[in-house]
Amino acid sequence: MRDEGAGGIGQVEAKIVEVCSGGLTLESGRRLESVEVAYEQYGEVDEARDNVVLVCHALSGGAHAAGWHRGARKPGWWDNLVGPGKAFDTRKYCVICSNVLGSCYGTTGPSSADPATGRPYGSRFPIVTIGDMVTVQKALLDRLGIRRLLAVAGGSMGGMQALQWAVAYPRSVRSVIAIATAARHSPQQIAFNEIARRAVMADPAWAGGDYYGGARPDRGLAVARMVGHVTYLSAGGMERKFGRRTAGPHPAWTLEPEFEVERYLSHQGREFTARFDANSLVYLTRAIDYFDLGAGWPSLTEAFRATRASFLLLTFSSDWLYPPPQLAEVGQAARDAGREVEYHEIPSGYGHDAFLLESETQTRIIRSWLERVAESSRRPRVPVPALARTKTSYWMPARAGGQGR
Amino acid sequence: MRDEGAGGIGQVEAKIVEVCSGGLTLESGRRLESVEVAYEQYGEVDEARDNVVLVCHALSGGAHAAGWHRGARKPGWWDNLVGPGKAFDTRKYCVICSNVLGSCYGTTGPSSADPATGRPYGSRFPIVTIGDMVTVQKALLDRLGIRRLLAVAGGSMGGMQALQWAVAYPRSVRSVIAIATAARHSPQQIAFNEIARRAVMADPAWAGGDYYGGARPDRGLAVARMVGHVTYLSAGGMERKFGRRTAGPHPAWTLEPEFEVERYLSHQGREFTARFDANSLVYLTRAIDYFDLGAGWPSLTEAFRATRASFLLLTFSSDWLYPPPQLAEVGQAARDAGREVEYHEIPSGYGHDAFLLESETQTRIIRSWLERVAESSRRPRVPVPALARTKTSYWMPARAGGQGR
Repeated sequence: MRDEGAGGIGQVEAKIVEVCSGGLTLESGRRLESVEVAYEQYGEVDEARDNVVLVCHALSGGAHAAGWHRGARKPGWWDNLVGPGKAFDTRKYCVICSNVLGSCYGTTGPSSADPATGRPYGSRFPIVTIGDMVTVQKALLDRLGIRRLLAVAGGSMGGMQALQWAVAYPRSVRSVIAIATAARHSPQQIAFNEIARRAVMADPAWAGGDYYGGARPDRGLAVARMVGHVTYLSAGGMERKFGRRTAGPHPAWTLEPEFEVERYLSHQGREFTARFDANSLVYLTRAIDYFDLGAGWPSLTEAFRATRASFLLLTFSSDWLYPPPQLAEVGQAARDAGREVEYHEIPSGYGHDAFLLESETQTRIIRSWLERVAESSRRPRVPVPALARTKTSYWMPARAGGQGR
Repeated sequence: MRDEGAGGIGQVEAKIVEVCSGGLTLESGRRLESVEVAYEQYGEVDEARDNVVLVCHALSGGAHAAGWHRGARKPGWWDNLVGPGKAFDTRKYCVICSNVLGSCYGTTGPSSADPATGRPYGSRFPIVTIGDMVTVQKALLDRLGIRRLLAVAGGSMGGMQALQWAVAYPRSVRSVIAIATAARHSPQQIAFNEIARRAVMADPAWAGGDYYGGARPDRGLAVARMVGHVTYLSAGGMERKFGRRTAGPHPAWTLEPEFEVERYLSHQGREFTARFDANSLVYLTRAIDYFDLGAGWPSLTEAFRATRASFLLLTFSSDWLYPPPQLAEVGQAARDAGREVEYHEIPSGYGHDAFLLESETQTRIIRSWLERVAESSRRPRVPVPALARTKTSYWMPARAGGQGR
């Protein structure tokens, strides 16, 4: 067993369980007769079963949030934040992370076998939504005997799930930690996802989604991932990381990758095809584009009136894919609905990737948030001291009367 | 003949001439034995041959800047700025626009016949640069007997050519109008171009560039163009133009384009494949990425010391592909070199597309600029009154002594 020393979780592995026995009716009305979910658990559930944090992953993540898989060269995707003494302190909290519906890391998705045919679904897989993902997560927690979450947390697509949890299961969520995300995609955000989908589908090897067992649409998938990576970094971050540097003498007078930034994108594209399923990219980006937290409600504020959680919202100054004002507006709607909201715009040059990379500031904020939420259930409710409101960081106390519902 | 009424140029057509007889040695050292150039001319050269403005087009443009081709449904790409009484007033100035080397609208490029084989060059076409484009433009003007330009003007890639002219042919350029452009591409700008190239090359129909006469890499080219269009619009502009509107009932539970923004991109991609050559996209984006005005000089400022022109630099507040600070830095370098610089950040929601769309403000600024430049040659030089310097618009007077060289 690999020992990561102080602060590390050590070796972990995912479990796969069946949920929604009897099948699952999706938001679209279509059904999945069988749903399996891959999940990992770090830390122990306490006696009151009151210390569970659900962590939700982003587009290309999976259940492996922390610790090490046997023989792996890298730990889980949020290992810097999840572990003993870390932001999500596994000595105090039980952290659970499950792979989302539609993905390719153990949970049912387009590459799973369709029970009706025994062959992979491909594009016969039904459209799934962020709401469907959350339904499956709820089914998993029910199965594990967990009724209430201290927090549900995630960045990017994971943050959408966290917000959705608060609306879908208000009695099950005490707090939401939504990071670098939005309550719905803007047309620019849809556009980048659409380009990724078109890049995959333009590859003849995609074959209408039925490529399993044959050549895979790797060239299209690599282009799709390159688009993603440009949106994950900030212009300034790229300037610092790559500039106009080249590996060899410049100019090489070539159409092939020559600048370091080109070689980086090429590497990221290639690496992604080895680890991700093209159809999962197509389905998950679609779920993200369809997500609209306020849909079905008169307004986003009304959606938040149905919630009971308090909200920690984190954004990053250089994230242009999910710009801070977008989540600040979500915070305003939650506050208008009487919810408690703490909002931070964290200075960072990492762009959207900051939710994976900015360990120190996130640790400080998330740790104190979780302590406060855990504390508030142990003793009579006292008003939380209001933070000084600055441009980038403030506490929005609940309005009088807003707590009642 | 189509009469567009007051302010319109009416029907025009391009001419194609051979230049660089004896062949052209490119910046890369490779040679083109034969170069043809397509150009259009609006207005007449005056007796002093001193009223000529060269207009340079962007990536997907051509020589057809203004007026109407017979039977066309749209006028030239800068018809709002070029014509009688317009910014580039063809009653006063002779405006010339030529298609760049490497393009597919009449000037020699990858789709032209290689004299050595009689077949299209394809990827045997040599890498060309912004400098090579300018060399060919100079050869054209020499052939037309024009020794000196009142101004050379262009947006985006056209702005790069305008800047390059000032450095390459200092005695031939009295003023530069560079719009929504940069002196060199940042890694983020390179990245978007690289994605476009990879999208084309990932299409098996690209066939290493030898697709002429067979199936064309239309699917890859469409994806490339979609990437372009996202970078040409601003996030706010897309919000206003598309929001999350859909053509039919929503959600339609489909992987196909459903949101208006998706249908727009799909349309733009398709339309582009009908009018542009994939190899030209690959070669021209490469030329843009290679462009570095200060390369070969100790600094960008030193490059500007070799120039004699004055510089009008226009940027747009919502252009995130060529953000205003990037061109403001270029202005600072020119000013440090003792050049006269007028810089404006024009408020606009159109993003990068603003250089094609913001008629009114550009007309006002460009008209008065050209009048001042034309005037300055007719009478003894007088100091230009300094504009009040505001955040977004200022006149940088030349430093004492800077004019001498």
